[in-house]
Amino acid sequence: MKFRRSERLIDMTSYLLDHPRQLVPLTFFAERYSSAKSSISEDLAIVKETLEERGIGTLQTVPGAAGGVKFFVKVSKREAEPFINELCQLIGSPDRLLPGGYLYLTDILGSPQVVQKAGRIIASAYADAKIDVVMTIATKGIPLAYAVASQLNVPVVIVRRDSKVTEGPTVSINYVSGSAKRIQTMVLSKRSMKEGANVLIVDDFMKAGGTVLGMVSMLEEFNGHVAGIAVLVEAEETEDRLVDDYLSLVKLSDVDVKEKSINVEVGNFFDR
Amino acid sequence: MKFRRSERLIDMTSYLLDHPRQLVPLTFFAERYSSAKSSISEDLAIVKETLEERGIGTLQTVPGAAGGVKFFVKVSKREAEPFINELCQLIGSPDRLLPGGYLYLTDILGSPQVVQKAGRIIASAYADAKIDVVMTIATKGIPLAYAVASQLNVPVVIVRRDSKVTEGPTVSINYVSGSAKRIQTMVLSKRSMKEGANVLIVDDFMKAGGTVLGMVSMLEEFNGHVAGIAVLVEAEETEDRLVDDYLSLVKLSDVDVKEKSINVEVGNFFDR
Repeated sequence: MKFRRSERLIDMTSYLLDHPRQLVPLTFFAERYSSAKSSISEDLAIVKETLEERGIGTLQTVPGAAGGVKFFVKVSKREAEPFINELCQLIGSPDRLLPGGYLYLTDILGSPQVVQKAGRIIASAYADAKIDVVMTIATKGIPLAYAVASQLNVPVVIVRRDSKVTEGPTVSINYVSGSAKRIQTMVLSKRSMKEGANVLIVDDFMKAGGTVLGMVSMLEEFNGHVAGIAVLVEAEETEDRLVDDYLSLVKLSDVDVKEKSINVEVGNFFDR
Repeated sequence: MKFRRSERLIDMTSYLLDHPRQLVPLTFFAERYSSAKSSISEDLAIVKETLEERGIGTLQTVPGAAGGVKFFVKVSKREAEPFINELCQLIGSPDRLLPGGYLYLTDILGSPQVVQKAGRIIASAYADAKIDVVMTIATKGIPLAYAVASQLNVPVVIVRRDSKVTEGPTVSINYVSGSAKRIQTMVLSKRSMKEGANVLIVDDFMKAGGTVLGMVSMLEEFNGHVAGIAVLVEAEETEDRLVDDYLSLVKLSDVDVKEKSINVEVGNFFDR
């Protein structure tokens, strides 16, 4: 069965968006559509142009016999900016303030659309980085971590605060939570991460950075390397922050629980 | 700026896949591409045909002034079957067996590709159902719940086993875990679910069904209705199961921890 160009373009787009950072050989598409490789090349040029123009992503062509094409998510600034501004507005509502200067984000993190878009934006920043795994800590960071990892085509490992029978043997470390200065424990299943992996740490919220620093210690137990740290929301701390090099989409400052006021601005995403 | 048909098809596909179960007015596309509505209608007919042919999903046209088009995920049996069979093979490895007849699934659940595909298949089964929210319990069910919810375009609410300061006020219930017959507690943030919602319960693993039944009790506290129950893996229980009407992709039986043997078959997905 032969496919028309229009059908090929639709199916190709769907396939490529669904397989980010995976090398798809031209022969795969040629066989899928019973088409000549030259037609496939032309199709891919159109797909690439459109994805770039619309700020969705790009295609990278790998030449040679073992070559093919790879889709990378690359959300353009033009696409990212209105979304991050909207996020700031959503987050800036003073009735989100909880005791201790924490913020109610459950509804925002509960929206798959918001989380996926945020994930795509974060993944865009690491499209060219060498990343083997995304690490997060239960529970709130999980959806964002998956949204990022699915675009980077890498697995997610979830650090927990307690060990569970369904995890098998675990590695456990102690860390000092930055804000409360309490000693806490985090646990990771031994099976869940290979030695020497390049790890992108993703979390929903960062205050002083103690939890993130705990994850850094954890990945060191697995001889891993920090490939990046990305959070949805950072809260400005008056004290020294424990973590320097990170990416944030939204930044809180002047959190005043008593006055129920809060200041929200765009994080450091566009400064990088 | 005018767009060629090929560009429209690529961008439309990307847009629709990204906005499942959302009514997109024809005028939205007409303005987006500076094209006549008649051309957009022709484009959509081609997109619909291709998505259906490839077993990806379908488009529903809503006529009238307030009309438009909606994408629904509908993974065909032909697409779902090889994936579920592969999942059975992955899960059937005897070194996954953990004490108590539990199964190590962390690596499988850690793969965004696997989770997204499973989520799409489950969402296909509920494409026509009235669902307002997907409910799951921390931690393992979360990624699958998001994968399902993103296709159904509804939020996720996460029941927890403990309450956290960042959740605000919570509702707490006790339930009896089916396998261990222990009394346990689960907690849900009061703000996180509206009254009277139609709830799809999603979890990674079900043995006797005590945890799922706990979630049913929980949603009753919010005057919700069970719109469905879906699990990735069910373990056959010799005793009476607490839950009758559910969907599963994979079914375990003859779990023998001592002999390190396990039998894995396709769940009830295709029987329904």
